[in-house]
Amino acid sequence: MFKRILLAGNGKKFFVKDIEKDFHCQYGFVAAAELRKRSGTVKTNTGVSLAIVQPQFIDLYSRIKRGPQIVGQKDVGAIIAETGVGKNSIVVDAGGGSGALCMFLAHLCKKVVTYELREDFVKILEENKKSLGLKNIVIKNKDIYEGIAEKNVDLVTLDLPEPWKAIPAVEKALVSGGFLVSYSPSIPQVSDFVEAIRKSSLIWVKTKEVLERKWEFEERKIRPFTQMLGHTGFLTICRKM
Amino acid sequence: MFKRILLAGNGKKFFVKDIEKDFHCQYGFVAAAELRKRSGTVKTNTGVSLAIVQPQFIDLYSRIKRGPQIVGQKDVGAIIAETGVGKNSIVVDAGGGSGALCMFLAHLCKKVVTYELREDFVKILEENKKSLGLKNIVIKNKDIYEGIAEKNVDLVTLDLPEPWKAIPAVEKALVSGGFLVSYSPSIPQVSDFVEAIRKSSLIWVKTKEVLERKWEFEERKIRPFTQMLGHTGFLTICRKM
Amino acid sequence: MFKRILLAGNGKKFFVKDIEKDFHCQYGFVAAAELRKRSGTVKTNTGVSLAIVQPQFIDLYSRIKRGPQIVGQKDVGAIIAETGVGKNSIVVDAGGGSGALCMFLAHLCKKVVTYELREDFVKILEENKKSLGLKNIVIKNKDIYEGIAEKNVDLVTLDLPEPWKAIPAVEKALVSGGFLVSYSPSIPQVSDFVEAIRKSSLIWVKTKEVLERKWEFEERKIRPFTQMLGHTGFLTICRKM
Amino acid sequence: MFKRILLAGNGKKFFVKDIEKDFHCQYGFVAAAELRKRSGTVKTNTGVSLAIVQPQFIDLYSRIKRGPQIVGQKDVGAIIAETGVGKNSIVVDAGGGSGALCMFLAHLCKKVVTYELREDFVKILEENKKSLGLKNIVIKNKDIYEGIAEKNVDLVTLDLPEPWKAIPAVEKALVSGGFLVSYSPSIPQVSDFVEAIRKSSLIWVKTKEVLERKWEFEERKIRPFTQMLGHTGFLTICRKM
Repeated sequence: MFKRILLAGNGKKFFVKDIEKDFHCQYGFVAAAELRKRSGTVKTNTGVSLAIVQPQFIDLYSRIKRGPQIVGQKDVGAIIAETGVGKNSIVVDAGGGSGALCMFLAHLCKKVVTYELREDFVKILEENKKSLGLKNIVIKNKDIYEGIAEKNVDLVTLDLPEPWKAIPAVEKALVSGGFLVSYSPSIPQVSDFVEAIRKSSLIWVKTKEVLERKWEFEERKIRPFTQMLGHTGFLTICRKM
Repeated sequence: MFKRILLAGNGKKFFVKDIEKDFHCQYGFVAAAELRKRSGTVKTNTGVSLAIVQPQFIDLYSRIKRGPQIVGQKDVGAIIAETGVGKNSIVVDAGGGSGALCMFLAHLCKKVVTYELREDFVKILEENKKSLGLKNIVIKNKDIYEGIAEKNVDLVTLDLPEPWKAIPAVEKALVSGGFLVSYSPSIPQVSDFVEAIRKSSLIWVKTKEVLERKWEFEERKIRPFTQMLGHTGFLTICRKM
Repeated sequence: MFKRILLAGNGKKFFVKDIEKDFHCQYGFVAAAELRKRSGTVKTNTGVSLAIVQPQFIDLYSRIKRGPQIVGQKDVGAIIAETGVGKNSIVVDAGGGSGALCMFLAHLCKKVVTYELREDFVKILEENKKSLGLKNIVIKNKDIYEGIAEKNVDLVTLDLPEPWKAIPAVEKALVSGGFLVSYSPSIPQVSDFVEAIRKSSLIWVKTKEVLERKWEFEERKIRPFTQMLGHTGFLTICRKM
Repeated sequence: MFKRILLAGNGKKFFVKDIEKDFHCQYGFVAAAELRKRSGTVKTNTGVSLAIVQPQFIDLYSRIKRGPQIVGQKDVGAIIAETGVGKNSIVVDAGGGSGALCMFLAHLCKKVVTYELREDFVKILEENKKSLGLKNIVIKNKDIYEGIAEKNVDLVTLDLPEPWKAIPAVEKALVSGGFLVSYSPSIPQVSDFVEAIRKSSLIWVKTKEVLERKWEFEERKIRPFTQMLGHTGFLTICRKM
């Protein structure tokens, strides 16, 4: 887990893991004694000033290991806003690979249990959990299609190729009023999932996609950026009622 | 605060405040003893079955009093995802009127202090706080432009017509690494705000808008809905570094 | 066909069909002699000034009879821009109902032949053709699935529930290098159509949707409009190569 | 101007300028006699089959010289759809650099007069005009801010850094009912232009942006493409009434 961020005037960032020893970078080194500061500025031995900041969750989060495809931050935000999970919520997660969604939810909720079949992903999950200092994540090297041991779960999140296979397990695990959110990149997956939900005891609330548009503000150059992320995935929100 | 939701087969919802006495609705009444159930079904005296659910935060949240213009859920989600505030965060909020954003953040964070000049809005804030059962909101009938008493704040959120006037107060209140997010519906406001940020000690991280597209799934009628919310506001994210 | 538009100061428009006789409106009447002007202003007998304009194609087009669902102007523009049809192009069209697309293309191209099975739509097509003064439209009360009599066609446009049924006829009708554009509101239709194209001698070029966002400019109120048309249809562009 | 396109089975395209002599490519050469075909297939001397197609306007258009920033096809389509210009329309264009918009409009309209101050762009315009075989374009090496010689113009299109400076000239040039469309990438330009229009004799009709979303259809991989063009420019449509 990173303990400090050092910022040069040109925007360059250095992440410091160990504040018990001097930190070396292209501008020389910063003495360990200086690294204990949580804010303000420090000087390298060559006289360069660097801003020092104690990293926030979001800084550490931006540095976790990621698999080829993760649930992006805009979609994580939508899941939280749609379901209203919070400090007392119990969440079950599956298929998230490196666990970007799982980690973010653990930061906000009481407990997250994540089901992951692949052992290489289990290792990444363990690493990410450790580097974020999250103690409330339980990683199970199990197949969620075969059942969810937890009961009275407030939210189940799925990022799976065949999410409909998890519905029977989810039906039993969710508390009354609890949510199921499935993330899928393609329409036929969503369509099959919505159909399966309609045959289940759960209710289909909505399917949506979230688009994010960033803007440039440089004097009179005020306009959306030319490049835009055109698509990540569709979020399907269901509920036990 | 609502204690139960009753759901008829046709999707109709009834919100029950008092479970100590019988609840009357168009299908007859449900006896108080039945209302104590947290899930399953109850029957009215006329024999109609209703599902009974203990409301989750998001249900109560959907019923709070709202002013003419609030920060919508998609934007609330984006603020949380961009800043990573969580259980230990201290938030200061201003200008949110009825407090939709303030309430959501209080649900997730340690404490929210909200500055609101208008007394009519202070009353609505008090009501909403009560109906959501949130104890960690401090409502101040004060002008945030004149200063923020809190220190080491992790996030300040502004929904103000002249957000640049709050920058000096925010600079002092934020912890190193802390965030300022301003929500504005129009470009000239955003432009003036970004310019003021550039003259301040804060860093402009990004300005973005979030678009949400809902989809229909009815057999082969799989397509985005015809009507779409085309715009709410721009989110400008800044940071103390 | 309308011959003149009269514009009141408040933006109110009156469409004049007959300039051989006086035109009566809520502001009195305008004498026939005055209506012969093609621009400038005219006065009613009560002394009200009205701007007089000779209608352009787009004004007449905005007044044609429309069925429940037509190919909107943004999609018409995309079809023209993608295919580059022009003064010498021969177009075959089917399923357009009231013919909004057919009329626009006839305005630009050499000739449009439109296939329409329903007799009520044939009548509307005749009316619209007449009111726009377009002489280069041939309306056939025939089923395009059964064949296209025209050869060396530059563009075929389809707005049909089962567009794949027209592919064999289109393959024979198109000139080498010619285009087929199919407009469908739902994904499964598009998907089935793309699959059928891949089994045909035609090439799938692209499938796209066009979104249009209108902006408000009122002093500092500079922002996208709140309401937006979220979806009309998908355009699938194919080519004979 | 290209006379033929040769297509290999792998999608590779070769553009042939001269059909009077053999054409050499990586698959050997195609004899001149064969190149006179307008469709079907030809064989190279090494026995490779290539489809032969007579290029359509859109093929030639895709190969014209382009400056750093041009009005893209989606915006060209929107201009045509909004204004309804056609075979009889007279258009004046300015600031288009390499003339992508000017060329497309000339393909559809009676005549386009384009004002271009920079001599290097005038040369590119001449080349593009020639390679597209368009005879109805008049290129004037003049400043449109100083006046438009044409009268009764149906459409003026501007792609200029200070489009408001052209308004007095446009007011005189447009026919009653005629259109002015200005293309600008940034909001402050649009804002200043709309304000100037409001002080002129022209009417502001609308300002809009056009977004295009392309879709992937590969078996069950049916979804929007990840990359999307997030922004080109804003179109402001005005009219003389």
